[in-house]
Amino acid sequence: MENFTFYSPTYFVFGKETEHEAGKQVKRFGGSRVLIHYGGGSVIRSGLLDRVKKSLKEEGLTYVELGGVQPNPRSGLVYEGIDLCKKEGIDFVLAVGGGSSIDSAKAIAAGAVYEGDFWDYYRGKPVEKALPIGTVLTIAAAGSEGSPDSVITREEGMYKRGASGEAFRPKFSILNPELTQTLPAYQTAAGITDIMAHLLERYFTTTKEVEVTDRVIEGLLLTMVHEAPRVIEDPDNYDARANIMWAGMLAHNNCCGVGRVQDWSSHKIEHELSAVYDCAHGAGLAVVFPAWMTYNMHHDVMRFAKLAVRVWGCQMDFDHPEVTAKAGIEALRRFLISIGMPSNFAELGAKEEDIPKMAHTACYGDGGCGTIGGFAKLTREDVESIYRLMF
Amino acid sequence: MENFTFYSPTYFVFGKETEHEAGKQVKRFGGSRVLIHYGGGSVIRSGLLDRVKKSLKEEGLTYVELGGVQPNPRSGLVYEGIDLCKKEGIDFVLAVGGGSSIDSAKAIAAGAVYEGDFWDYYRGKPVEKALPIGTVLTIAAAGSEGSPDSVITREEGMYKRGASGEAFRPKFSILNPELTQTLPAYQTAAGITDIMAHLLERYFTTTKEVEVTDRVIEGLLLTMVHEAPRVIEDPDNYDARANIMWAGMLAHNNCCGVGRVQDWSSHKIEHELSAVYDCAHGAGLAVVFPAWMTYNMHHDVMRFAKLAVRVWGCQMDFDHPEVTAKAGIEALRRFLISIGMPSNFAELGAKEEDIPKMAHTACYGDGGCGTIGGFAKLTREDVESIYRLMF
Repeated sequence: MENFTFYSPTYFVFGKETEHEAGKQVKRFGGSRVLIHYGGGSVIRSGLLDRVKKSLKEEGLTYVELGGVQPNPRSGLVYEGIDLCKKEGIDFVLAVGGGSSIDSAKAIAAGAVYEGDFWDYYRGKPVEKALPIGTVLTIAAAGSEGSPDSVITREEGMYKRGASGEAFRPKFSILNPELTQTLPAYQTAAGITDIMAHLLERYFTTTKEVEVTDRVIEGLLLTMVHEAPRVIEDPDNYDARANIMWAGMLAHNNCCGVGRVQDWSSHKIEHELSAVYDCAHGAGLAVVFPAWMTYNMHHDVMRFAKLAVRVWGCQMDFDHPEVTAKAGIEALRRFLISIGMPSNFAELGAKEEDIPKMAHTACYGDGGCGTIGGFAKLTREDVESIYRLMF
Repeated sequence: MENFTFYSPTYFVFGKETEHEAGKQVKRFGGSRVLIHYGGGSVIRSGLLDRVKKSLKEEGLTYVELGGVQPNPRSGLVYEGIDLCKKEGIDFVLAVGGGSSIDSAKAIAAGAVYEGDFWDYYRGKPVEKALPIGTVLTIAAAGSEGSPDSVITREEGMYKRGASGEAFRPKFSILNPELTQTLPAYQTAAGITDIMAHLLERYFTTTKEVEVTDRVIEGLLLTMVHEAPRVIEDPDNYDARANIMWAGMLAHNNCCGVGRVQDWSSHKIEHELSAVYDCAHGAGLAVVFPAWMTYNMHHDVMRFAKLAVRVWGCQMDFDHPEVTAKAGIEALRRFLISIGMPSNFAELGAKEEDIPKMAHTACYGDGGCGTIGGFAKLTREDVESIYRLMF
């Protein structure tokens, strides 16, 4: 195991009707004038936004609103939010929504107290300062409610890039599984896929002897395998929603990723797809991950076999571990199809002719060094080959 | 799943040679005049105390020392520490040692800023205020490095009682697995047993549909089952020590215990043993837990069978789940014996004639309501019967 630090100081409030605590939590963490940042329709239609505003008013807090966050959130709205924060004297940013709203809120919170262009952070500058952030989560997926990360798409060039830093950890996050019960099945499944990808990006490591984090990752994957079909079958299954929601946080606050090399090339390969075709991130990952695994299995067949046995219940072929490893990949692929995720390039609306450009951007675009990935170092040619496995 | 809050704001610094960061971390969290609190011999002999003092000096911090913490830490030294803090104007308490030193440091930190008797907290008053606490951990066991808990024995009456509160969460904890390599095998095994007991106390629940926390607990137990024989065989196995150390933190910061009823009667039953006979807490738990499980299995046979199958690899007897459940208890018992733990009353130095008094104290002593346990409510008679299963 490698040396590490781990710091997850977010206060989590989990359970039914907890959105009513938003005002109390903002106040607890020092906010007085709040930017409420959200997407659109469902947050308004469901009455959630009104409940959150009511809870702020009850604590004597004032607020301004900025809606309109899109999936794969864009830099344009971030700039708008930064201006609004400066103009309105905002001292707390409250995201109400999923990963897109939270990631956009994080970018605004950092930009609001930075003299330069917020995009500097998405080019690699560590995020050391930001307005305090809180979240009311509406989809179990991105894990941004407990993570120090944010992903934004810059419209100029359509670069999708991540930024990271302790200042991006929310002060509090409110997780009410009820709020996810109205999600369409496709979005639920895309969220589940994103959570599983966060686990797999950490599982595929070159670090030896990391049993504790292996076992926690496997446990969280097993949870997803158990609960996903239950929520697809019955969207109102509160307990299954709750198990998925807590797993989504644990999958990405890095308690199970510490002390080990992680990979993250599948996320980078997917980011090109969702930046170019605006597909759901999770749907893109459902297509990318089996292809990435197939291409990279030979780097550590036993690790793939371990995943196959422990998570997918495959029988170990002790004479031919690669048979077990492949069976595990196939089990993941079938599982993702079973919950309604796409399995190939065409289903994403992706086109073969875009492959060279996407592979180039994944490896070189906007600050890239030419290779990606921690488990397997991938060149532009490797990434092209992986895209071609998605047909 | 039940509603819950979860807050674990401790900054963890994990890995080789990390004790040199003690001074930097104390300073980061606002300390200037430090009480260093520790046990005795090994911390001094190994040079650890000198390294910690050097790191404080390098940051320009001053300190006073209070050594002499015993296993099953006593109230007498806590009172001494409180007086010392007040007299010396201490603003930060740094524990160097295992759970005993940390628990004693927590009690001192709370008492130093409280007008009344610190023991009030151990009678049930929530701990809302304490001096900031940091830890340099030397044994993977108690989980106190990441928990809001502390257990102290009051000499007058030999009551062993716990207190809890967010102010007891350390600001930082330094976890260097190297420091555990010199531990005698018996202490290592007792620590492993304590960690497993923290997981089992959470596993045995009446809350339904808590798959995510079940799976994480199982994953951490599987880690212990894998790593324990490796460190007993080779005390210098750094990676095995590291996996155990991180598991010990995750087992008790409650990330895997949220949203569910927990039990904790085995801990209470054991506290009487270590209070009266001064045995190692983990050794006591090794004797208590199989007895507690045998006595309470009938409350939820399927949960016991699940543990047996998932953690101990027992075959599920679908016609007779109780057979599988019992096989799991037997597997735990054999495992604990295999790592050198005691398996009966006599090996602890315990005496049959003390049973009635211990059972009474466990249920009624110093504020007890007459029953203990969340999974199964146990009366004094139940506790007596469980003690009698330990022969």
